[in-house]
Amino acid sequence: MNYKMMGRFLAQILAIEGILMIPALLISVFSGESPAIRGFLCTIALIAVIAGGLWAVCRKAPSAFYAKDGLVCVGVSWVVLSLIGCLPFWISREIPRYIDAFFEIVSGFTTTGSSILTDVEALSSGILFWRSFSHWIGGMGVLVFLLAFTGGKGQGFTMHLLRAESPGPNVGKLVPKMRTTATILYVIYIVMTIINIIFLLLGDMPLFDAVCTALGTAGTGGFGIKNDSMASYSPYIQNVTTVFMALFGINFSCYHLLLLRQVKSVFKDEELRLYLGLIFGAIVLITINLGDFYPTLGETIRHAAFQVSTIITTTGFATTDFDLWPAFSKSILVCLMLVGASAGSTGGGLKCARLLLLMKSLARNIRQTINPKKVLVVRNNGQVVDEKILSNCSAYFAAYMIIMFVSFMVVSLDDFTIGTNFTAVVACFNNIGPGLEAVGPTCNFSAYSDLSKLVLSFDMLAGRLEIFPILALLSPKIWKNK
Amino acid sequence: MNYKMMGRFLAQILAIEGILMIPALLISVFSGESPAIRGFLCTIALIAVIAGGLWAVCRKAPSAFYAKDGLVCVGVSWVVLSLIGCLPFWISREIPRYIDAFFEIVSGFTTTGSSILTDVEALSSGILFWRSFSHWIGGMGVLVFLLAFTGGKGQGFTMHLLRAESPGPNVGKLVPKMRTTATILYVIYIVMTIINIIFLLLGDMPLFDAVCTALGTAGTGGFGIKNDSMASYSPYIQNVTTVFMALFGINFSCYHLLLLRQVKSVFKDEELRLYLGLIFGAIVLITINLGDFYPTLGETIRHAAFQVSTIITTTGFATTDFDLWPAFSKSILVCLMLVGASAGSTGGGLKCARLLLLMKSLARNIRQTINPKKVLVVRNNGQVVDEKILSNCSAYFAAYMIIMFVSFMVVSLDDFTIGTNFTAVVACFNNIGPGLEAVGPTCNFSAYSDLSKLVLSFDMLAGRLEIFPILALLSPKIWKNK
Repeated sequence: MNYKMMGRFLAQILAIEGILMIPALLISVFSGESPAIRGFLCTIALIAVIAGGLWAVCRKAPSAFYAKDGLVCVGVSWVVLSLIGCLPFWISREIPRYIDAFFEIVSGFTTTGSSILTDVEALSSGILFWRSFSHWIGGMGVLVFLLAFTGGKGQGFTMHLLRAESPGPNVGKLVPKMRTTATILYVIYIVMTIINIIFLLLGDMPLFDAVCTALGTAGTGGFGIKNDSMASYSPYIQNVTTVFMALFGINFSCYHLLLLRQVKSVFKDEELRLYLGLIFGAIVLITINLGDFYPTLGETIRHAAFQVSTIITTTGFATTDFDLWPAFSKSILVCLMLVGASAGSTGGGLKCARLLLLMKSLARNIRQTINPKKVLVVRNNGQVVDEKILSNCSAYFAAYMIIMFVSFMVVSLDDFTIGTNFTAVVACFNNIGPGLEAVGPTCNFSAYSDLSKLVLSFDMLAGRLEIFPILALLSPKIWKNK
Repeated sequence: MNYKMMGRFLAQILAIEGILMIPALLISVFSGESPAIRGFLCTIALIAVIAGGLWAVCRKAPSAFYAKDGLVCVGVSWVVLSLIGCLPFWISREIPRYIDAFFEIVSGFTTTGSSILTDVEALSSGILFWRSFSHWIGGMGVLVFLLAFTGGKGQGFTMHLLRAESPGPNVGKLVPKMRTTATILYVIYIVMTIINIIFLLLGDMPLFDAVCTALGTAGTGGFGIKNDSMASYSPYIQNVTTVFMALFGINFSCYHLLLLRQVKSVFKDEELRLYLGLIFGAIVLITINLGDFYPTLGETIRHAAFQVSTIITTTGFATTDFDLWPAFSKSILVCLMLVGASAGSTGGGLKCARLLLLMKSLARNIRQTINPKKVLVVRNNGQVVDEKILSNCSAYFAAYMIIMFVSFMVVSLDDFTIGTNFTAVVACFNNIGPGLEAVGPTCNFSAYSDLSKLVLSFDMLAGRLEIFPILALLSPKIWKNK
């Protein structure tokens, strides 16, 4: 491990975090919330000291960069970002315990949206903004941000970073140059967020609410600024959010293709079809299953669509307590939790692209058993998929399941029901937010022990970074100084 | 598909089923239970007609045999065996509904042990014996039985059959000749069952109870002949069963190696080490977690060991209501349910061998990410594992998870809790027997709807035959007449 290079890298990342805190600080100043102002100022000062020190020591590090360095840098920087990013919550005493503050910011950066807070409306507006903004930062990735706006050194460096931070089995470069790719992604992200804000404002949502909601939607995060999440907003605002959540769960390369007017290849994209098919199918099944749970069919469809969209995109807003729904509808939601959104979107989960690859290699293996002598390949969008990607996808799936069940065991030390513990892990690991039963949409994670909160924080990070960067941190070999 | 050949094959299989019903018929005659006698006689007569007819028509079929024919033959014959094998329950009216009788015999043949009966002690002794005997038949496999005692035609035929019916990622031939392999397996199986009966008799267990319990243990089935399963038997009998369940969950090739005095290679076997390690670790963790749940430490260890052994080997007997245990202990049991016993044993589940391969290919892929240029292989017991086996293992795991979650969704149409529905599917698919909550060890599956019973029966068959033979039945391509 090239420690000096990592130091320089961390200095840059921390500097960006400090800068990104300024809007929240300004909101606190504007609202005259002195504990929050103290929280942000102290944190920014601390960041200045640490980042300055690291920069002074490590500035002249060589930039030789290997794949494993990329993994470790991503893992370490997300942990450090969270350790520092939760300080405003803690210093302002709005979240009195550090472990809770850490859980909350990890939940923010990883766009999970699970909360330990029982009363979010008691928070000051600066802190509320920082919570929602953390979703937006984490959604597209702070390292991608670094790439887009400062440029990384060397092509290898940027490739490895983007590969480690971006979701999905296979990172598509939009254009040959990585920095340009990162910039295009962020521009699409910013423009879509602004459009979302405008649509919300058109529904008479207050500006602050609209901005926070749009930030949470864009990052597919799910922190609400009301105790009932989105339930008290108008149907129009709920529907706008339904649509935008679904849009932010689509692979951003589709939008790039749209900008290039390659409409045909967008509509032929197999992952997009699966994603939209799952959304549509789930809404229909749940609407039928709900029957007359709500007074009108329109209301049923609205709630079904919102909940399907919020769960498959792993956002985690809620307009209704879906824990009260019949078991079949809940089981559909649990399965959607595992599937997750598209690769290359801001959503979490296993990703539709991986599910597609898994199902295709399964079909291939069945065909292979029937015809042992044929050489069979797996195709995606008409192109042959490299066996390495298939093997990685299977390994990912195995890691995913093993981590999920081990976490489930540890979390079960807190004596809740199987449904609660299992969906808590699923909701955190897939960056969704609410689970079912005691961690359902009207409840929160505050009852869990510190150990469980740490495990769930680990799961959130592992889920957001797609496991390998976080697993790499646990390998002693990688820390050897070469 | 070579239909004539399948017909001849079915005729043989059905004839064996008829012969295997004779002991149960004799017990019914001896006990003077006329409804059961009627049940067995009618069924045997029906078998004689069907098997005789099939044999007359298909006797002279060519014996060209492909891999896919092996898959389909195994799938079809298990379904037919179950459709006919449940008739004694139904005709004797001891299980009045046909779908319940079908569920019960599928549960028997697949060595699951899930029951729809609320009062097993009300059954006649002939029927009780047939229930337990079905575990023993299904444990080693009725096709392996056919091979062992009648011999199949042609080496290709037998390989494909054994591969399709035997559990595990990789079928090991013990000796070059398949028929001899099958015979060795059955001889070991019979001898171990007899030893088990002797040990039980030494604990003053009545002969009938001892035979039925040993049959259920050997097949890792789990049908009890008492309403409280094994709870009212003496600690000695419970401990004997604990040990024998664990023994029947070991790969039978280990016993063959022991007979050949290759003790060293048995103790070096990585799967055996993982299996024993999991049992030991789980017993320790559960004993600690139970604390003073039971009056003495000895009793705690006894119950912990029994339940761990019954769950990991997917037997499904119970000595205590483990649904009352703390959540951590229950979560360990749920994870053990998924792991299951060793490949090449009578147990079900994913199998330790597959878990080992999954973890190894996962570790390989992590190392590969860190060192992209090295060529890395996966080794098992020191030997390089073929990439095809790895790819099959991953495909199996994907199929396993997909079937599990789809079944979970369908079963959820019956409005039970997530914990009930999820563990019902896990318990059936992994051929365990009891789940948790409403399908816990003191409860049964009678409350589920017919649809759910069919889905769970499908899961039991898919779990026992390791998915592919049953999935093959669903493929229209395979039914084409070539």
